[in-house]
Amino acid sequence: MTTVTTRTVTYPADGLTMVGHLALPAGAGRRPAVLIGPEGPGLNDFQRRRADALAELGYVALAFDINGGRWFTDPQEMLARLTPLLADPDRMRGIGHAALDVLRAEPRTDPDRIAAIGYGTGGAIGLELGRDGVNLRAIGTVNGLTTGRPGEAARIRCPVWAGVGSEDPIMPAEQRDAFAAEMQAAGVDWRLVVYGGALHAFHHPPVDQPADQTVLPGVGYHPKHAQRAWRDIIDLLAECLPVTE
Amino acid sequence: MTTVTTRTVTYPADGLTMVGHLALPAGAGRRPAVLIGPEGPGLNDFQRRRADALAELGYVALAFDINGGRWFTDPQEMLARLTPLLADPDRMRGIGHAALDVLRAEPRTDPDRIAAIGYGTGGAIGLELGRDGVNLRAIGTVNGLTTGRPGEAARIRCPVWAGVGSEDPIMPAEQRDAFAAEMQAAGVDWRLVVYGGALHAFHHPPVDQPADQTVLPGVGYHPKHAQRAWRDIIDLLAECLPVTE
Repeated sequence: MTTVTTRTVTYPADGLTMVGHLALPAGAGRRPAVLIGPEGPGLNDFQRRRADALAELGYVALAFDINGGRWFTDPQEMLARLTPLLADPDRMRGIGHAALDVLRAEPRTDPDRIAAIGYGTGGAIGLELGRDGVNLRAIGTVNGLTTGRPGEAARIRCPVWAGVGSEDPIMPAEQRDAFAAEMQAAGVDWRLVVYGGALHAFHHPPVDQPADQTVLPGVGYHPKHAQRAWRDIIDLLAECLPVTE
Repeated sequence: MTTVTTRTVTYPADGLTMVGHLALPAGAGRRPAVLIGPEGPGLNDFQRRRADALAELGYVALAFDINGGRWFTDPQEMLARLTPLLADPDRMRGIGHAALDVLRAEPRTDPDRIAAIGYGTGGAIGLELGRDGVNLRAIGTVNGLTTGRPGEAARIRCPVWAGVGSEDPIMPAEQRDAFAAEMQAAGVDWRLVVYGGALHAFHHPPVDQPADQTVLPGVGYHPKHAQRAWRDIIDLLAECLPVTE
């Protein structure tokens, strides 16, 4: 018996029609709310289930879309979309703001208590919302340890939690160090968890992978660290965005 | 109303008489047990209260001693004791084994379910127990990211969780990297949390600090990260050493 209600939401952003997944907790009143940003290939059932899990904990949760309803299985096609997107903070912010507007328009959402969590590209978008000065209660980013335009990190006013695999070739040590240095120089309340031995996309098993296609090099599932990273996200939300009736 | 029982325990180690603090949970049966290693100045009430807090969660907990009952307020005196100790894995192991023997001799302790957590020097001692092949369920170390003798980390058979302040001059980035590389090369299940902006000894307020003496440079309390590091330790124990009646 679940008391969570879910709804598919479509909305325009970045010239596309985005297809998000909104999950509402039991009850009737306003609740703290969480944006969930998916990784580069797109929104998938793992992120939708994370929204459902947060709704079970009492949050309004929107797993948002970044690719207009598409899930890329072809790495080249994915990179063709992501490379220019990740180089353009304004486009990332546009995608994040569109999702934020959907979340804020939901009557169950307490618009003053919103956190952004995300994975890879979705985490980078949460950080850009922070650098845009959006009033968030927390930013959690797994694998998305992207730096921003000079000086803008000082506009982040909430705790930032970041997690990454130690062996992730897409977020190597130099990138982690650059991210940490940006946060520290900006006076942000930040933390970084390095999950030993984990690769990129360690946080979920491979999905929708055609049998004739290998995953990208440096990508791999790590069940233990996947569970720990989720526990760490839940702890972040419990600290910064406690659910109170 | 507390149901925790505490006891001062004295035992010989490293040519000294150690004075530890043992805390027992409510009930009568065997329980998982935790060694708590103090930082360099010695065992103090913060660590004793941590033992009590773990006992409230259902663990047998021993906050052990490293300095023969002394708490050093004079940095020079402290370094005179610690510098040779930290350079000698066998002496560190001796101090750890003596504490482990006390913990195992307690009838409430389940000798097959023991974890070691520690701070600074106390964390380094927990790591040395692991490198000595002791059957531990988890090792948690705050600020003590010391490397060991070549090859011995491969004897660590439990998850290792490590935490450190990003601005800790006593555990700088090179030391963190060397520690991570040792764990990774040894195939250990490891994690490292970098607490942004935190200095050394960030995990508790200054204690017993004479008014005419400044703390060591690079040392400072960080209330938020202190709470987070404790939460992280509790999560580690919940994962690796769950309390079951």
